[in-house]
This record gives sequence, C-alpha cells and structure tokens, in this order.
Amino acid sequence: MRAVVLQGKGEVTVEDVPDPELPGPEGAIVKVERTAICGSDLHLYHGHMGAQGVRLGHEFVGTIEETGSQVSRLKKGDRVLVSGVIGCGKCDACRLGDPVVCTGGMPGKVFGVGPDLHGGQSEAVAVPSADLFALPIPEGVTTEQAVLLTDILPTGYLGALRADIKPGDTVAVIGLGPVGVFALQCAQLFGPARVLAVDTIPERLERARQLGAEPIDASQGGTPAQVLAATKGLGADAVIEAVGADATITDALFSCRAGGTVSVVGVNLNFQFPFPVPLALIRRLTFRVTLASIPTTWSALVPLIEQGRLHPEDVFTHRMGLSEAAQAYRTFDNKEDGVLKVLLDPSS
Amino acid sequence: MRAVVLQGKGEVTVEDVPDPELPGPEGAIVKVERTAICGSDLHLYHGHMGAQGVRLGHEFVGTIEETGSQVSRLKKGDRVLVSGVIGCGKCDACRLGDPVVCTGGMPGKVFGVGPDLHGGQSEAVAVPSADLFALPIPEGVTTEQAVLLTDILPTGYLGALRADIKPGDTVAVIGLGPVGVFALQCAQLFGPARVLAVDTIPERLERARQLGAEPIDASQGGTPAQVLAATKGLGADAVIEAVGADATITDALFSCRAGGTVSVVGVNLNFQFPFPVPLALIRRLTFRVTLASIPTTWSALVPLIEQGRLHPEDVFTHRMGLSEAAQAYRTFDNKEDGVLKVLLDPSS
Amino acid sequence: MRAVVLQGKGEVTVEDVPDPELPGPEGAIVKVERTAICGSDLHLYHGHMGAQGVRLGHEFVGTIEETGSQVSRLKKGDRVLVSGVIGCGKCDACRLGDPVVCTGGMPGKVFGVGPDLHGGQSEAVAVPSADLFALPIPEGVTTEQAVLLTDILPTGYLGALRADIKPGDTVAVIGLGPVGVFALQCAQLFGPARVLAVDTIPERLERARQLGAEPIDASQGGTPAQVLAATKGLGADAVIEAVGADATITDALFSCRAGGTVSVVGVNLNFQFPFPVPLALIRRLTFRVTLASIPTTWSALVPLIEQGRLHPEDVFTHRMGLSEAAQAYRTFDNKEDGVLKVLLDPSS
Amino acid sequence: MRAVVLQGKGEVTVEDVPDPELPGPEGAIVKVERTAICGSDLHLYHGHMGAQGVRLGHEFVGTIEETGSQVSRLKKGDRVLVSGVIGCGKCDACRLGDPVVCTGGMPGKVFGVGPDLHGGQSEAVAVPSADLFALPIPEGVTTEQAVLLTDILPTGYLGALRADIKPGDTVAVIGLGPVGVFALQCAQLFGPARVLAVDTIPERLERARQLGAEPIDASQGGTPAQVLAATKGLGADAVIEAVGADATITDALFSCRAGGTVSVVGVNLNFQFPFPVPLALIRRLTFRVTLASIPTTWSALVPLIEQGRLHPEDVFTHRMGLSEAAQAYRTFDNKEDGVLKVLLDPSS
Repeated sequence: MRAVVLQGKGEVTVEDVPDPELPGPEGAIVKVERTAICGSDLHLYHGHMGAQGVRLGHEFVGTIEETGSQVSRLKKGDRVLVSGVIGCGKCDACRLGDPVVCTGGMPGKVFGVGPDLHGGQSEAVAVPSADLFALPIPEGVTTEQAVLLTDILPTGYLGALRADIKPGDTVAVIGLGPVGVFALQCAQLFGPARVLAVDTIPERLERARQLGAEPIDASQGGTPAQVLAATKGLGADAVIEAVGADATITDALFSCRAGGTVSVVGVNLNFQFPFPVPLALIRRLTFRVTLASIPTTWSALVPLIEQGRLHPEDVFTHRMGLSEAAQAYRTFDNKEDGVLKVLLDPSS
Repeated sequence: MRAVVLQGKGEVTVEDVPDPELPGPEGAIVKVERTAICGSDLHLYHGHMGAQGVRLGHEFVGTIEETGSQVSRLKKGDRVLVSGVIGCGKCDACRLGDPVVCTGGMPGKVFGVGPDLHGGQSEAVAVPSADLFALPIPEGVTTEQAVLLTDILPTGYLGALRADIKPGDTVAVIGLGPVGVFALQCAQLFGPARVLAVDTIPERLERARQLGAEPIDASQGGTPAQVLAATKGLGADAVIEAVGADATITDALFSCRAGGTVSVVGVNLNFQFPFPVPLALIRRLTFRVTLASIPTTWSALVPLIEQGRLHPEDVFTHRMGLSEAAQAYRTFDNKEDGVLKVLLDPSS
Repeated sequence: MRAVVLQGKGEVTVEDVPDPELPGPEGAIVKVERTAICGSDLHLYHGHMGAQGVRLGHEFVGTIEETGSQVSRLKKGDRVLVSGVIGCGKCDACRLGDPVVCTGGMPGKVFGVGPDLHGGQSEAVAVPSADLFALPIPEGVTTEQAVLLTDILPTGYLGALRADIKPGDTVAVIGLGPVGVFALQCAQLFGPARVLAVDTIPERLERARQLGAEPIDASQGGTPAQVLAATKGLGADAVIEAVGADATITDALFSCRAGGTVSVVGVNLNFQFPFPVPLALIRRLTFRVTLASIPTTWSALVPLIEQGRLHPEDVFTHRMGLSEAAQAYRTFDNKEDGVLKVLLDPSS
Repeated sequence: MRAVVLQGKGEVTVEDVPDPELPGPEGAIVKVERTAICGSDLHLYHGHMGAQGVRLGHEFVGTIEETGSQVSRLKKGDRVLVSGVIGCGKCDACRLGDPVVCTGGMPGKVFGVGPDLHGGQSEAVAVPSADLFALPIPEGVTTEQAVLLTDILPTGYLGALRADIKPGDTVAVIGLGPVGVFALQCAQLFGPARVLAVDTIPERLERARQLGAEPIDASQGGTPAQVLAATKGLGADAVIEAVGADATITDALFSCRAGGTVSVVGVNLNFQFPFPVPLALIRRLTFRVTLASIPTTWSALVPLIEQGRLHPEDVFTHRMGLSEAAQAYRTFDNKEDGVLKVLLDPSS
C-alpha cells in the first residue's frame, strides 16, 4: 500500500510500504478514507524530532477491515475515527479514555511519530486497542468533521477547558492557525464576554472577527502591550497559546491577568524555555501544557457538532490526493494560498 | 412620596407614604428611576406571604440622593442599581457580596417583603449598607438592563450556574416566564449542545426557539415523557425549574438524567413538597434551590451585557407609570396581552 | 449450593439453590469467601421492597472459578472484590466504572435485590461484565477490608465527597451505623475543622469521639437545635445523613448552614418525603442523594487503606457462618449485642 | 522607634527610625508584639532584590494604637494579625481579601520590601486599609499562631490547595523549611494516601516523618529518581516545591506524574528559568506559582488552628529580641543551630 514517508528535513514522499498487520487481539486494521496534516507534523517535517523513514500522520478516519479476536465493540465495515493519541490499552487510564496518563508503559503515544506506530497518511493503519481508541462515526457527524475529532478539535477544546474560563471573562487566543481557530471556538463554549484573537495574517484575523472575536494584529505592536491596552491594563483572564514558539509563549505569560491561566496547545520542543518565574509568582499564574486525551472529549464534542453548535469542517481550505502529499506539505508549511488545513484522500 | 402598597389579596394601590430616612451611617437614599415587577411579587399579591401594608418591589435603579457618613464608594448623584437581596452589611459574607450566607443575623433579606425593608416600587428607597449592595451603573449598561441586574437576571444566571452544565450537555428549562428566559440564555453560556424549553404558551415557546432552544409544549403531554423521548430515554443532564409549582418541580426531577442536577429558581412556598427520594437515590441526583446573592454575579454579567452577549432588556413587554401599578399587577398576574415583564416609571 | 433467601417480612433462611451459571461471555463465577450484611438489606428484610424468594447480599469477595470467553483482565484463581452495583457493562458509563449512569438499560443494578441478579450471601455468585465490576484484591488490602470496598465504604466516601466539604468546615454526620462511621472517617479526608456526630446510642457516640468527632446525643434534644447551638446558630457547612428516615433527613436539612450541602447516604423509600422548599430557598441549599458508583472510588480508597489512613475493618463486630444468617439478621436488625456490622463466612 | 534595616548584602542592623504615620483614613498604626523572619526575607538579605535601607519584615502581629476615620471594624486596643500582602484596599479584589489580583494599581504589595510600605520587624507599623488586611486575633489562636497566619502558613496552605490534591493521591513536598513544613501539613488536609518529603537535613526529614510523611533524603540520589522509585515509576500526583531554587523546581517537574500538578511556593527570582516544555506537554502538567492572598485563607485556617487540627507554632525554634536581629538573620541564613523559624520580640 502507499504511505507518506518522511525522507528528511523538508521532504516527504509517497512510498509503497508493507500492508499493516493486526496489532494483537485487541487491534484492528483501518482502511483510511480521509487523513489530515497537523501543525505538529511540521515539527517532524522540519527535522526537529529526528525521525527519518517515519510514516507520518495521526489524524485519520476510515473503515474497519479486520479486527482482533478480543475486539468486541467494533466489527468489519464499521466507519470509525481514531484517536491520534493512544496508550497501552489495558490500564485504568486507557479504559477511561485518557492515554496521556496511561500507567501501562505507553503514555501519550502518537501515531506517525516513530517506527512502532505507523501513521495515518496512508491507505491503511494498524490500530491497537481499537475498542478504546476508535469510535464509530456518529450519525450526525460528517467524514470531514470526524477527521477533526481525531486530534485537533479535541486539542483546541482541551486547551480551552484547561484555561479555566468563566462566564464574563476576557480570553486571548494567540495564533489563529487551525488549532487556534478551534481553541477560539471552544473558548466561546465557556461564556466569555470577550475573545481577543492575535495573529499577523489578515485573513486569519478576519476569520476570527467573523467568529465573534476581537482581532489583534501582532504585526502592529507587542502582543502583551496590545492585550493590556484592550483590558484597562489588567491582561486577559485566560490566554490560550496556539503557536508553540518561545516568543508567543512568553507573550502569553505577559498578557495574562493576575490570578489567570495560560494554556498552551502549541507544540514547543524547547527543554529550556526561559520561564519568567517572578512574573508567575507576582501574578499567581497557572500554566498548563496539553497533550490531548482525545477520547475524553468525544462525549462533549460529538453532540456539539451534531447540533450544529460547532462547524469545525470550515477549517479545511485544501482537499488533495495522498499522491500530492509533497505539495500539500509545502503549501501548509509555507502558509501559501490561504491554507489553513489540508485534507488528503488516500484513494487518489 | 408615592409607593405601591399591598392592600390584600389581589389588590395593590399607590399611596402617599413617608419619605425614606437614612438607614444608618452605611446607608443611602436612592431616588428611583425605574422599577420592575417580579414573579415573586405575585406570591405576596396572592396573599401567600401574609403581608398586608407592605411597600412592594425589589427590582429598582435610581440616583443617590443622600449617603451616610460611612459610605465611601458612592456619592450623591451617582446612578446605581441595587441588589434586591441584602444582609447585615458587616459580616464577611456580606463583604463578599453574598448576603444569603450573612452571619450577622440578616441572611437573604429581600426589599419589599416586610415593613423593615421597604420596597422599590416607589419614588425613593432607603438602602442599607450601600457600599456593598449598590453598584454604580456601568457605562455600557442601559437603565433597563440595570433594572434586570438587581434580581431576575442574576437569579437566572445562578440557576444556570448551579445546574452544573458542561459543554455538550442537554439542558431542560421548565417555565419560560422572565426568569426562565434568563435561565435559558444563561444556560447557553455553559456550552450545552441542546436546550429544551418547556412551557404551554405558544409565544413563549416561539421566543425560546428564537433563542436557540428546542420548544416542548407541555400542553401536548407530560414533560418528563417528552424530555425522555427527546433524549433517547435518558433525560436531560441538567434541568432548571423556573415556575415554582409542585407539579413542575416534580416534572423537573423526573426529567433529569441519572447523575444530573435539578436547579430550582421558581419560588415555591411548600414546606412539605412531596420529594421522591428513591428516584433521587437511584438516579444520584443533585437538587438545588437558589436565592440569589445578586452582587456575586455582577462581575460576570456586566461584561456580558456590555459586550452584547446578553440582551436581557428584550423581556420588557410593558412599560407603564407607577400610578398604573394596579393595572400592571393585574396584567402580569393574568399573563394578559403577551406580557413577559413590566417596567414601572415612578415619575408618572 | 447454599444461599441466604428472603422468605418474607423478618425471615431469612439458608437454602440449597442451583449453582450460578456463567452470565454471558463477559461474566465470571466467583466462589464467595466472605460476605457482609448491609443496612440496606434490612429494607428487604422489613418487606419494604416486596421481594420474597430473593437471594440476598451485595457485599462479597471471593475467588474466580470460571470466566467467560471475553474476560481479559481476570482469570480463574484470582481473588476479587465485586462492586455491589453494576450496569450493562457495554456503555461508556459502565466502562468508566459509573454504572449508576449506565445508558445501556441497566442503571444502578444492585446484587441481591431481584431474581435477575442473585446476591452474594451465598457460596457462589454469577458476576456479569467481570472485567469492569470485579477488582483483584490489591496486595495491601485484607479480605475484610476488601469486603468493605464492595459497597459501604465507597458509599460513605461518596457521601462525604458529595457533601462539598472544604478545609476548615464544620461537618455534621447524622447516624453512626456502619455507613455513618465511614462517612465520618471519609469526611475527615477533606480537612474539616470539626465533625459533629449525631446518634442516640452511647457506644456509637463514643466510637465517634475516638474517631475525632464531637458527639451529639440526639436523645438529649432536637438535632437541629443542638447543631445550631454548637455552631453559633449558623448550622453545619455540610451535613451527611446516614439513617434514611424521614425525620433524620428533615433534621439534616434544618441543621445545614445557608449555602451548605446535605448529602444523603441513608436509604429512604419515601416517594413523598415532605421537603421544605422555602428553607432550601432561603438557605440556598444543595441536596444530594447517592447511589454509589463503587468502581469510581477504588483508585482513591485502595491506597488510603494500603497506607493505613483508613481502617474500615474496625466496623466488624460480628463474624458468623453463613448458616447462622437468620440469627445474624436478627442481631443486626435489633441492634443487639453492640452490633455494628456482620461478616458471614460461606464455608461454615 | 527601632526597626530592622537592611544595610547591604548580608547585613542588617536595628536602627532608630521615625515613628509610622497614619496611612490615610482607612489605615491604622499597629504596635508590634511579635514578628518573624521569613525565608523570602533572605532574598533581600542576599542582595537579590537590591533594596538597601529597607525596613524589613512582613510577618507581624500587635495592637492597634490608632485608626483612621474610615476604619469601622477595628478600634484602638484590638490585638490584630496583619496580612503580609496587601493591595489598594478599594477595588473589588481587595474587598474580597485577594490583593494579589487587586485592580487598583497595587497588586500583591508586600510589607518590608520597599520604602513605600515599611516592614514589621520594628516596634510599630503603618497598615493601610486596615479593615481589610488586619484581623482581630481570634480567641482560640495564640500570639505565635497568629504570627504564622500573616504569611507563611497561608502560603503553605495555598501551595497545597493549588496542588489539586485528591483523596488517595501521592504528594511530594520538596524542601522542608518552614513553608515546606506547612505545605506538608496542609497537604494532609486534602486526604492523600502518601506524602513524600524531600530534604537533605536529617532533622528536617525526621520532623516530616513525625508529621506522617515518608522522608526522602535528596543527598542520597536524585529527587526525581527517588520519587519515581517510590511510585512504581509514575511520579507523584502533586508536587509542592518549597525551596525556590532552579534545581528544585526542575526536580519538581521531573517528579510529577502525567496529568499532575506542580505547585511552587518557594520564591525564585529567575526570569529565565529553563522550563522543560516538552516534558510538560507529554505529561500534561499544570504548573502554578503562588503569591498568597493571605486574607482568603483565614476562614479555613483559623478554625483548623482553634480546633487543634493544625499546630503551626511548632516551627518556632528560636525566640529572640528585636535587638538581636543581626544574629537572628545569620542563624537563619546559615541554618545553624537546628533553626527552622525565628520569632522576634520588639520589646527587647
């Protein structure tokens, strides 16, 4: 079968690779119907995580082709969406849908990062512990919405949930790429009076405005200064960082009101990020970084999508064939052509 | 000055009464600009609380005419809204804006219920502990919105807050009078996927639909049966009761999903309400009744109004002069003429 | 095999009954090692739940004798404790260990109440969905402690958890039978400054004193009056009711401070309990009734027992053979002989 | 009058300074009865905060000598304890006892750090907004206990509160100086199964053992390695850092379980602390730094002390005269003579 393979820094190709094999009696083989490129895939693409030869992708939906003998909730032919993050599948945490706190030795394992859990930008994927980590696509959820339930919408949702937003609050969202857009929409679920939306790209700022936020153009001045100016010098009650750069995390901390929370959903790989402890002390801050336990979010997000309260599919600006993966990555990486999110179809 | 006085069951008049006197050094005299009739005033009007001669009204806004010597946050000429519920003004609870848990001997005292705290349906009112219980009307809040911040919107808000709504939940609101409408709107602040809105009056059901809820006509069948039918037999995650009748509280309990919460904001005066304990046991229910600590809600509600996230003033269907109080009460009590909420102007 | 069978009001016998059969592929047969009589068994014993012929008991531990083909976490020979409350075993709620909110049609099903789920006061029991509802007895937990983890300690724990106790609070526990004793000990986990313990039996009051509580003898005056006198007229911040009588639930409500919570763990079968709504309104109370989702409590309670922070086994005052069940029920029902809790051994 | 004055790095003297003047109509003059040296005073003593000439000290209790005209809750002769952290005294946050989030321009102002708010290691102090920040010493609280309620016990308490401890958890406390000892005792209020207590000083480890914790000697190996070894490789559910060094904050982060919380109460002045973001991401950590809003803690801590649930006064190992301040600072700084906490008496 074909799969997107990372060849090195800035280079992906579509290769013929061996078909997946059933990953044990709890596992399943899923024939991929649609798969997306995630902002965190770019860390691999940029060579920051040193993983040449990896089959990429952790956002995918498809159809069950085969199930192991212990799979009891799924059967061949079921259309499923799959959590981009899994765990051992046996411990209590995994049973509770929270593989990030898996105690069985596989906490927070992501598809498409290493050779032991091949990615979903391919024609088929081996899914371990399928009963726990695959969900039959609910009736009121479209295929494209389902793709977004595999990682990025849950990440945005948990980023907002973990920002401690209360009704009447002012929230700032820094970075309006796909995860930022979802964080913004999910922040609205918690009743804020205002959402300040920070980016430098005009069309992203305009999209935020249409979603009910107040755009702040970070190219026009420092983010903290602009957030403070918009909040009588106090800062935002909650700040969601959705970029992952050192500078934007720093901005988030300096934009946050005393007693507030900074919730980071951007992926940052710096083990020595210069954290301003005295600022956090004086302002009594809470700082959270979130790897999403995807399955824990489905009970909230599925009804919100079904009822039309969330329209996540609007982020897809590009729909391409899997064979165009190299071009897709380039477009996404360069933020060309108004791209926000790219969907790939393995059948072409 | 003139004031609305309860003469007996079903009879109010506008009488000349003595002007208010400064209620101690922490108090203030407020010249009333607008005042509203609250559903709970009807309990007095119906003679259920035996209080002939009472000067009615606990929803009012106006202008400070005089302040006691210890008042430090307000001054003559300030336009203020006043909490309909007050306390001793000295204990920690009162200082925290939560007079319902006042430890100084005056917990949850309401204007216009007894002779020791005259009501606001009058030309002027004596407001004790004014620093704590009166708030200068914020710039972005209109007079009519301010009136609604004195009791009914805070009550609806706390009813929703105390219903434990989580994103994705299904909420049922029983009773779509003014407090129910506010409970419905405030429930939306907590990110539910669905709000079921129960009443029997077509225009109220239609209003709920326009506010994004799914109307359920209680004249077409039992409320629990209809709520269960709409929720695959499970019931609503949260139920807000906004009528106060025994039957509707019972409906609320039987409409609630296992593990859910029933939050009562309707005023019920039955000391022997027949509570189905085994139902609450089997379904592990939480049951809350709420007298609102008004000032605790202002920090959330004021910015929501200022930013246009809440438009509470839409509930006013009737604007009349204080001299028309008798007619106003009759109209409100009989639910005539499409009435939802009546505003009175003491200057006419 | 032998089992305790309810013959009618006030009469249980030990009968030969058919051996249990495997309840489907997810089920297991457990050979019972120890089983206890629960206060709620007395409701059946008193004929209040009309269930002649029922095999009683929902508190038991034992050894797996046989497992269905889909059981993956347990095997023959494992010593297990079993949740006294189960559900369908397939829905998300059951997977999360919370069968009370089961959406699969079996919410909050209790062993030993009806003919379709035989009880554990017998030599062996059929346990459905064993992977979810049976837990291998952890190394640091004794057999007797394990029995208490099947219902009564989790119930006491959840009663305390759902009482919203904060550090520094004053808690009142009404009723110092076994579940009350556990509620008292679990209340201590939340850092109260004071625990008031109400009963009429001197040895129970003395036991409470030894557990760090302040005894209140309800035979010396009304409970609310005594609780108010002990709390400067304010009432207790949290009240846990562990009797289940109408009078004691009423006492609990009238003993609770404004803004507080009444948490009922006593079993009350009155569908028309006379609930004082105006009191709950004026005091802004939260009222909770709890059927325990046993498995949700194990992750907290097991380490507390293992580390010696809880010593639940102290409640066992009587250890008898299963053949003595009739006498055991009489003793327990009559509160004779200083009985607090009775343990039965099916091997004798 | 006499006051302890910082002369330069490592040098304090007792100087004659002008008597304090009433700091406005809401202020009071307090004659100091007892005052303590706090670990954070050592940052000034070490010259890290560059404040030569400062009158030190933010932990003190005494007697009201004079009150401004607007002070209504205190009067001359009242014995009071004073919050070491104050705010503007006019905004809502200050009224709620939370000056750290003061919106009036003085958030989190600490006595004895700069020239505009002289410290309490002196014979008398000017206390602004006395009604809000001074508390009459409650009847059941001793003078020495009262001193500890002015900063360090509230800080330890909030450090524990903000560590998100649940019943059954394993908590690690890093650093067993005075604030660590209080964090340890306050952690016990939240029902943990285990408290791991990390330090290198044998007597501090022994004290922790007596308080019910499991000592870990950090001189015997890396803290994270030892914490992980003690927790089956998982880490502690909650980690409280009570040193403030870069190395110990790093240890705290690496000792924390996935999904857990690191709560820092040690004072760290590094604006570029090397924070391991990928670790926090993979483990989904919450990281909090806390400047204590002292008055918010009194309602919990006072009854706990009054009821003997907390015995904070045990930390005082040295009681000296104010005139011995230079020696007191040296002893405390050098951790000589088994010192844990030093109390000073301004009368000698």
